[in-house]
Amino acid sequence: MHKMASGQLSRAEALACTNCRHACHVMLYCDTQNELFGQIPIKHIILMQMRFDGLLGFPGGFVNPSEESLEEGLSRELLEEIGAVVPISVENHVESCQSPASTSSTGLILHFYAKKMEEEQILELERSAASTAIDHGHEVLGMVRVPLYCTKEGGLSSFLSHSFIGTARQQLLDCLLRFGLISPQNLCQALSISVATHKRTTKDLKSALALMKGKQQ
Amino acid sequence: MHKMASGQLSRAEALACTNCRHACHVMLYCDTQNELFGQIPIKHIILMQMRFDGLLGFPGGFVNPSEESLEEGLSRELLEEIGAVVPISVENHVESCQSPASTSSTGLILHFYAKKMEEEQILELERSAASTAIDHGHEVLGMVRVPLYCTKEGGLSSFLSHSFIGTARQQLLDCLLRFGLISPQNLCQALSISVATHKRTTKDLKSALALMKGKQQ
Repeated sequence: MHKMASGQLSRAEALACTNCRHACHVMLYCDTQNELFGQIPIKHIILMQMRFDGLLGFPGGFVNPSEESLEEGLSRELLEEIGAVVPISVENHVESCQSPASTSSTGLILHFYAKKMEEEQILELERSAASTAIDHGHEVLGMVRVPLYCTKEGGLSSFLSHSFIGTARQQLLDCLLRFGLISPQNLCQALSISVATHKRTTKDLKSALALMKGKQQ
Repeated sequence: MHKMASGQLSRAEALACTNCRHACHVMLYCDTQNELFGQIPIKHIILMQMRFDGLLGFPGGFVNPSEESLEEGLSRELLEEIGAVVPISVENHVESCQSPASTSSTGLILHFYAKKMEEEQILELERSAASTAIDHGHEVLGMVRVPLYCTKEGGLSSFLSHSFIGTARQQLLDCLLRFGLISPQNLCQALSISVATHKRTTKDLKSALALMKGKQQ
């Protein structure tokens, strides 16, 4: 295939690239009335996962459009990773884009979906992910919720400072705004703090590496 | 209380500080014969968690030595966070130290434990953490396993590049060596790669912040 420019594609344009590999991921979320420590509104539960490669990402994976629809393939991946049937439809499609990591020899198109569910359904997905999912302990090292609050101890700001696969952090940020799950002002503030949190890790990591090298000598 | 120097304390020395706050955390782990993708030995399962503050850490929390032993208090915290009874004994004690974050007004002593369990017990803890633990979705946003392998996609190197609470990353590194769960050479290599992984996040975070600020204008 010839190299395509990075950027947004319609679902139809994306599917027209029959030589590309296709990966589908989804943000599963719900509203909640629960409060942290009985006083901080949690507002929404958003599911992400610790992947086998040690990075945070959304559930999903590779789909083969010649054998299944994108949405069928994504549902199949969710069954493997979460251990439950989660129907995904074209209405859940958010965007498709060429992966920034694509090259002429490894064209990769990323399809992103979002599905709002009921709180009890999300709780059931967390339970099945840790019990019946065949990928548990293999492709998935655990499901985690994204904190949307920011307290003086952290919350969303610290969460955003972690290491994410590919475009997952940006997909999260975009969906938080797109679905009105956080105000632009609060998100901007959380991102600013996350840069500072991230900087502290730089120092810690370098100290740990120096200590380790010292022990080996 | 007067300010103490940062550093290691014996369990008895640590307990003698009756004005200090005490926190106990534990590394729960097991051996496993499972392999990732049927070829990469997983070797050990080590449990950590995504905390309410968006940071990674070990299960545990504050203990009040005037009302309970350190080990009883830690077991109580585990029941809340993991939803299962995990007996902890003095034999599981690894080290105690003054928290680097301690000041004269907020003395904090950190006690660290490690307990090796059977694989089936660890799997059961993951299930109960996502189903019956009262702290699930509140103080704990999800349990995750620490990958010990390093493939070209990442693994331990990416995991170590995340943001951890207090001394948790260093406690993990120390225990990996102390219990022979990884070779010093492999750990040193993973740490080196994690510094590079972490640096990429710096760039991503700053781009995301610039993009967000641009949208707000």
